[in-house]
Amino acid sequence: MQNFNTLIQVVEALGILAFAFSGFIEARQKDMDLVGVFTVAFITAFGGGTLRDLLLDRRPLFWVEHQEYTLLIFILALVITPFMRHLRSAFSEKLLVTADAFGLGLFSVLGASLAVHAGMPPFVCVMMGVITGIFGGVLRDIICNEIPMVFRRGQLYATCSFLGCWVYLLLEWLSVTETLSLSTGILITVATRMAAVRFDLKLPG
Amino acid sequence: MQNFNTLIQVVEALGILAFAFSGFIEARQKDMDLVGVFTVAFITAFGGGTLRDLLLDRRPLFWVEHQEYTLLIFILALVITPFMRHLRSAFSEKLLVTADAFGLGLFSVLGASLAVHAGMPPFVCVMMGVITGIFGGVLRDIICNEIPMVFRRGQLYATCSFLGCWVYLLLEWLSVTETLSLSTGILITVATRMAAVRFDLKLPG
Amino acid sequence: MQNFNTLIQVVEALGILAFAFSGFIEARQKDMDLVGVFTVAFITAFGGGTLRDLLLDRRPLFWVEHQEYTLLIFILALVITPFMRHLRSAFSEKLLVTADAFGLGLFSVLGASLAVHAGMPPFVCVMMGVITGIFGGVLRDIICNEIPMVFRRGQLYATCSFLGCWVYLLLEWLSVTETLSLSTGILITVATRMAAVRFDLKLPG
Repeated sequence: MQNFNTLIQVVEALGILAFAFSGFIEARQKDMDLVGVFTVAFITAFGGGTLRDLLLDRRPLFWVEHQEYTLLIFILALVITPFMRHLRSAFSEKLLVTADAFGLGLFSVLGASLAVHAGMPPFVCVMMGVITGIFGGVLRDIICNEIPMVFRRGQLYATCSFLGCWVYLLLEWLSVTETLSLSTGILITVATRMAAVRFDLKLPG
Repeated sequence: MQNFNTLIQVVEALGILAFAFSGFIEARQKDMDLVGVFTVAFITAFGGGTLRDLLLDRRPLFWVEHQEYTLLIFILALVITPFMRHLRSAFSEKLLVTADAFGLGLFSVLGASLAVHAGMPPFVCVMMGVITGIFGGVLRDIICNEIPMVFRRGQLYATCSFLGCWVYLLLEWLSVTETLSLSTGILITVATRMAAVRFDLKLPG
Repeated sequence: MQNFNTLIQVVEALGILAFAFSGFIEARQKDMDLVGVFTVAFITAFGGGTLRDLLLDRRPLFWVEHQEYTLLIFILALVITPFMRHLRSAFSEKLLVTADAFGLGLFSVLGASLAVHAGMPPFVCVMMGVITGIFGGVLRDIICNEIPMVFRRGQLYATCSFLGCWVYLLLEWLSVTETLSLSTGILITVATRMAAVRFDLKLPG
């Protein structure tokens, strides 16, 4: 369990960084200044979890409890903004997509798990998981004045989170260990998302 | 009172469906996929009430307590999305406008009533009613990257909700029965909204 | 302390009016009707504080406790809307920018102060201050379908709030009186904002 928690924290940090990075990129494309770049990155990374905590009435909020992540994004925005163009080519697209898929999986399944432990009914737990996973990106796109990427017809994204959360719930219901149900849910999300990107899978319109 | 509660629930279900339907239509016009169609319909139907509950610090949220409505919208999105074009002509415009007017009236006046019972001052109760009635549509338009319809110069909409909530508050203050004050407030909202559509009533710009 | 509280209330009223006025102007440019003008002004004036209170789980909300401000904005919207064009030239640009700077300073530093007294860690207190100061304008721009002004490359705005909040926190940490730390934080914000407008100071992109 100790090892599992450490693993969760590493994946979490990777997911936050991947989400923040997608915020950096979109804010720069909109020609925002440093404040805009930081804010958009921050909201992309923590928007989904914050909305979930508001809906579940949970306090303290994640980024209040872990101000080190907020600081990290602030410092990254300071350091990265001037070198944005170069950095984007330094990180391969594949790395970013992979880290984002892990962030999506982890945030979604942990969100569903919090809702389960708050005694929510099953469909609501899945919705809370999906909200946690995707709403950071939705808010990023709203602030950048775009129709949210996840709602446009594109490669499966929210659907992967939806599947992963149901798998997690099913395993919880079968009373397997939390470690097994969490990691299976996360891996299902990651695997379907990677497959969607690899094979260009889309929902019907 | 028993009959009245059943009536309220029927009107509520109709209102939720009408609001969800307007979400389906707008999401399809923006060429969203299934996930987008469901999410926009869900937010249109429950966004106003959720915002009201966040502001009043009420839990559980309406859609958490009644997960059957969430499920219903999900199934409708699955079933309806492929047949959208045909469905729109199947339902007459008049039916949709009428159902939406009832939804607006019911959500607004029930919202104001919750604020009254939470001990809010009168103008705040009216604002909570209007927020409950219109903010689902506002969020729908923000996600679809439009200036919210209710704020553009058009036929009276928020104003009808505003009037209905004041009538409800006035009757409450006169200590008539809750059944009478609720139903009068709702009917005033519905009547003014239908009149606004019928006679093209607008506010000055 | 009595005089200081009165001063705070006067500055607060001025800041609310300045924020509401910027809402009036932007809503009118988008050709909204009376309901839109009122709602945008209301959200600009109270959006930042409401978001802060939701994040800190504070109730009653500011505009619920002081419904007189809500009423004031409503009456102003009624009275001002028809004369918008003339009013804008009546108030000089300089007056509006100055009142807005005071509103920014006051809302930011009071927001940071509420977070300090809620026991938040320092960086989070500053973020709460900045959110209180700028999110009204961010929500105004999102509703009006614009990329938020504070995130676009322009004269320093959020940065002034950020500086003022840090100065306030530093003085609190040095255990000076609350009156001194609040007023210094506010003045630093106002001074840097006025300097930014006067000398066209911008952040690097």
